[in-house]
Amino acid sequence: MKPLILITNDDSIEAPGLHKLVKIASEFGDVIGVAPREPQSGMSSAISVSRALRIHEVPDYSGARMFTVSGTPVDCVKLALNAIVPRRPTLILSGINHGSNTGNAITYSGTMGAVLEGCMNGIASVGFSLCHHSVKADFDLSAPFVRQIIADVLKDGLPNYTALNVNIPARVEPLGIRACRAARGHWSEEFARYTDPMGLPFYWLCGRFINEEPEATDTDEYWIGQGYISLVPVTPEQTDSNFLKQLLNK
Amino acid sequence: MKPLILITNDDSIEAPGLHKLVKIASEFGDVIGVAPREPQSGMSSAISVSRALRIHEVPDYSGARMFTVSGTPVDCVKLALNAIVPRRPTLILSGINHGSNTGNAITYSGTMGAVLEGCMNGIASVGFSLCHHSVKADFDLSAPFVRQIIADVLKDGLPNYTALNVNIPARVEPLGIRACRAARGHWSEEFARYTDPMGLPFYWLCGRFINEEPEATDTDEYWIGQGYISLVPVTPEQTDSNFLKQLLNK
Repeated sequence: MKPLILITNDDSIEAPGLHKLVKIASEFGDVIGVAPREPQSGMSSAISVSRALRIHEVPDYSGARMFTVSGTPVDCVKLALNAIVPRRPTLILSGINHGSNTGNAITYSGTMGAVLEGCMNGIASVGFSLCHHSVKADFDLSAPFVRQIIADVLKDGLPNYTALNVNIPARVEPLGIRACRAARGHWSEEFARYTDPMGLPFYWLCGRFINEEPEATDTDEYWIGQGYISLVPVTPEQTDSNFLKQLLNK
Repeated sequence: MKPLILITNDDSIEAPGLHKLVKIASEFGDVIGVAPREPQSGMSSAISVSRALRIHEVPDYSGARMFTVSGTPVDCVKLALNAIVPRRPTLILSGINHGSNTGNAITYSGTMGAVLEGCMNGIASVGFSLCHHSVKADFDLSAPFVRQIIADVLKDGLPNYTALNVNIPARVEPLGIRACRAARGHWSEEFARYTDPMGLPFYWLCGRFINEEPEATDTDEYWIGQGYISLVPVTPEQTDSNFLKQLLNK
């Protein structure tokens, strides 16, 4: 039997990046798309704990059945596994995201929230992001590399509790793929401040990523800057083992 | 000058656990409370990227100025640091959450989303959760331990990029505090399935945590079960260094 590949994203069912990924994945197996009905950028691993969720089937795309879920990317994965897929997927893919998920953007990323969810369910999971926000971004330049990563993961699998965060440089033909670590950084939290027609203030998030180690040559930020695709193995487990050892030896 | 302590949560400004934490923290410094206007359980590290955010000051509590933000716990921390606090906080506390955040619940937890945000901003940050969902849960039994943890962190600080996830057993006087790691596990994704008055199906999340290593005696799940407070050092960084080494040596 062909492998079943579940595809989701955080940009919603209408995103060209999702369609591109469905199309490429269709070369490798049976594909089902389950994506949020509304855009879910920045939703991280959020789950809907106190509201109803709906599933709607929409027209097939490139031979794949396609569904929307009225929730977050993690809701999509959970509901897909429990109420949509006919058998256990071999692979979960998320993206291709319209926008970068390098550095610690993984903390906020809905794309990667879905990937970590797949991973915690014991399914090999990979997130793809193109470092370009436009809805008209060109996904074709990276297609051969996306194809290669899918083929490799289907062949070799991934360790338990390890997933992949793949970022693709914008507007260039990638020079290759580089395994690396996420750059350490934070977001500069500038908020735009406005005054509404009633004279009351409101705020709008507009931060940007500050790479705290711009000299490092082993990070995703570095390799993206060099024109390579970055591939960061990530884990949902967050215990800080080093500091735990210190605490236990006190 | 007294230390400034910023307090937030994911259960909203009205949660008794927030008030308890404000009261205890007031013994150690100047306190400002900035909490979500609406409950935000399960919101993880979600940020509001495409909507306006509002700040409202509400009546003081126990000598602390109190504010609501119309967003997520991470929005609360970001907006507090940028638009509310008069100086940089020495400490960020989140909770006391009404409900457990052991094991990999940290992935979904709004309480811990706020804590990881504080940590990435270079501020010592601690999340407190009581393993009991009731709005009438008894926070008094654990107060001496909460006090001790706050005092220790104010005295010793925390390493860069390390925060603390503290869970408190329900309905017992804790026997002590144990530093430990998060139990590996996943959520059993049962959804309740309903039919609406139109005859259309909808779904409601109702999973529960499955501890995948119930025999382990060094996890938060174990120590909570023994009647201790679990203290897990956590990091926002998620690169899987072991698998990265394997990939680089291929």
